[in-house]
Amino acid sequence: MIRLTGFQELTPIDEALDKFFRKLQPKKLGTVPVPVKEALKRVTAKDIIAERSIPPFDRSAVDGYALKAENTVEASQFKPKTLRLVTKDSVRKGEAKEIWTGNALPKGSDAVVMLEHTEKANCEIKVLISLNPGANVSKRGEDLMKGEVVVGEGVKLRPQHLGLLASMGIEEVETAGRPKVALLATGDELVSLGEKLEPNQIIEINSIILSGMCTELGAEAFSLGIAKDNEKEIEEKIRAGLGKADAVITTGGTSVGAHDLVPKVIAQIEPHSIVAHGIAMRPGMPTALAVVQRKPVIILSGNPVAAAVGFEVFARPLIQKLQGSKSDTRVKVKAKMARRVVGVLGRHVFLRVKVIEKGGEFVADPVRIKGSGIITTMTKANGYVIIPKDREGLKENELVTVHLFDVILER
Amino acid sequence: MIRLTGFQELTPIDEALDKFFRKLQPKKLGTVPVPVKEALKRVTAKDIIAERSIPPFDRSAVDGYALKAENTVEASQFKPKTLRLVTKDSVRKGEAKEIWTGNALPKGSDAVVMLEHTEKANCEIKVLISLNPGANVSKRGEDLMKGEVVVGEGVKLRPQHLGLLASMGIEEVETAGRPKVALLATGDELVSLGEKLEPNQIIEINSIILSGMCTELGAEAFSLGIAKDNEKEIEEKIRAGLGKADAVITTGGTSVGAHDLVPKVIAQIEPHSIVAHGIAMRPGMPTALAVVQRKPVIILSGNPVAAAVGFEVFARPLIQKLQGSKSDTRVKVKAKMARRVVGVLGRHVFLRVKVIEKGGEFVADPVRIKGSGIITTMTKANGYVIIPKDREGLKENELVTVHLFDVILER
Repeated sequence: MIRLTGFQELTPIDEALDKFFRKLQPKKLGTVPVPVKEALKRVTAKDIIAERSIPPFDRSAVDGYALKAENTVEASQFKPKTLRLVTKDSVRKGEAKEIWTGNALPKGSDAVVMLEHTEKANCEIKVLISLNPGANVSKRGEDLMKGEVVVGEGVKLRPQHLGLLASMGIEEVETAGRPKVALLATGDELVSLGEKLEPNQIIEINSIILSGMCTELGAEAFSLGIAKDNEKEIEEKIRAGLGKADAVITTGGTSVGAHDLVPKVIAQIEPHSIVAHGIAMRPGMPTALAVVQRKPVIILSGNPVAAAVGFEVFARPLIQKLQGSKSDTRVKVKAKMARRVVGVLGRHVFLRVKVIEKGGEFVADPVRIKGSGIITTMTKANGYVIIPKDREGLKENELVTVHLFDVILER
Repeated sequence: MIRLTGFQELTPIDEALDKFFRKLQPKKLGTVPVPVKEALKRVTAKDIIAERSIPPFDRSAVDGYALKAENTVEASQFKPKTLRLVTKDSVRKGEAKEIWTGNALPKGSDAVVMLEHTEKANCEIKVLISLNPGANVSKRGEDLMKGEVVVGEGVKLRPQHLGLLASMGIEEVETAGRPKVALLATGDELVSLGEKLEPNQIIEINSIILSGMCTELGAEAFSLGIAKDNEKEIEEKIRAGLGKADAVITTGGTSVGAHDLVPKVIAQIEPHSIVAHGIAMRPGMPTALAVVQRKPVIILSGNPVAAAVGFEVFARPLIQKLQGSKSDTRVKVKAKMARRVVGVLGRHVFLRVKVIEKGGEFVADPVRIKGSGIITTMTKANGYVIIPKDREGLKENELVTVHLFDVILER
């Protein structure tokens, strides 16, 4: 059979990514100082080193009385030891001082007896248990010692990280620059959300989906608008994107037909810039990757599901590299396939599934697929499974790895 | 042994939550219309119904030629059927029209043959395969029919949801109001980040951690500042919080000692408002819950780890209820305990663990614990395990459920 316009050859995903990154040599963007209080989800640009110890001083871990442990030797409920309460800032033999959780230990004391293990009478307490030195004390540097790494490079900051940094008096943190991503949608049939829809037109949604995916990863997306299927218009907009952004992502005009304008325009802007066109995956087969003016250009299918899968496979690792992020892998869980599904030999298939917890184990139910254009497969699913290109399919009850993009609810 | 000032009785977590919600009767906050393009991670306030079908018309799922399927009966590579190419907007017997992915099917056509399965010659094409009606066609309403639920109530919107809503021309979505949470830190020893630190003082970090946790859940946190251990100051700030916020969360001044000012002040503002004080959990035992002026007040320990755990257990479900959110459960995975750990009979223990993938299975390694004050246990961990209150501990290799708050990296 003659394949009039099909791709000559499909490039495997790994090979395409490898070629792309080898040509691009992606480097981390410049760093940006951000106040710790506003640094949630920002990615650290370098190791952060403790400039002081935490706790900064020996302190009480409980409410009680600071004392010398040696004064409690053999103390018990039946043989309590009596100590004199003092209010000054140090404790000597036979003395004890009231202390609350978090307070610094007074000079001379080396342990704290909990309130519950004492009886109070006027200016004295009876200690009902014996304590070792260090009992109920948080030692200076127990949490972190000066010079230790507080938070490593490439970490996406969680609330707890912010608290830890603040506890050391760190007010500002060097974060990885947020990659600027320019999004271009192409297609004569597209109109922007909010514009009047003529018959045979559809609303352009890829820029909305991909912009959200960029935001989730910490990148800043902006739209270059919609280009008609017109070389000049596409070229102008791509050039504008290359001028302002760290990466350009286009959707539409990529399959091998008369309308495959984007790869053509890219090749005109810079010959030999395309490193792969036609990827051994489904959906997303017509995806292309290019390095133009030393910047990454990802050319995705116009189909929203294929575009989202292409973003997942190629734009996600790119954005991670530009940020030096180590923590943007999706959570992966093992689940049992609820039913048999067929794959496509020679292509990785991205199967949208809904994972539910059922009797303590995870079950992955493939979302009904009829054409890769079905957007609801992505909203009904909470993750995806990759059917390897050397497998004819997955068996019922087969244990698979699900990449989650949402929570798992019980059924 | 006399327990001078200990809690008389600890309330189990479930019972405390139940009492809290029964007294509060939390209701969803008012709804807020948000442009779809800005609605990422907002929670839907009601079911969203499709006002049109997607696709809005029968359209081609491939690049090729629209035709009548009946004209391809018995067509094959060896016995191709020849059809006349037309450019008008309809297709009759013996005709075919060029069509691209996403284009509306011309009148009269009911199938599309892929480019690859044809040979073109001037004004004719040879069709090399036989097609059934509907072949390579996305039928009107195949994705969603008018009247169907597009996105259900209580869903946290992902990029794909935004795309789906936009595809139907929906420009604005009714979202759950973001709960306003007032945070008050109490303690004589506390200073704000950026202020000069005297000996024996520590930087107040609970408001930073809890504010981040609120943001992650979609709530809007604001700080009431730091109150000294002084009834009047605490009361004034709590009253200010109740006036402006949907919920108040305090940290510090809650354990049963001379400094247990917050529960005392709460009881003065409104008698019998405290529904639980002293919870059967570790850390976080001195947590208290109250309903004051019909608003929820959560009184957390001053210890940052205990405060974060208390937030997780009590504030998280509260914020979910105020938003009507169904999707804010953490991802849970099964993992094998890397080593034995001891629990505390009578209390749920929240054990911070680091889960790693090791030879295809998840292993949960307890983060070294020495006192609940160790903030680094929360930054080193990527999740937590609950040791039930009726268990003396967990065994090595025991299969446990880990609640994840971060990604799992391979080792």
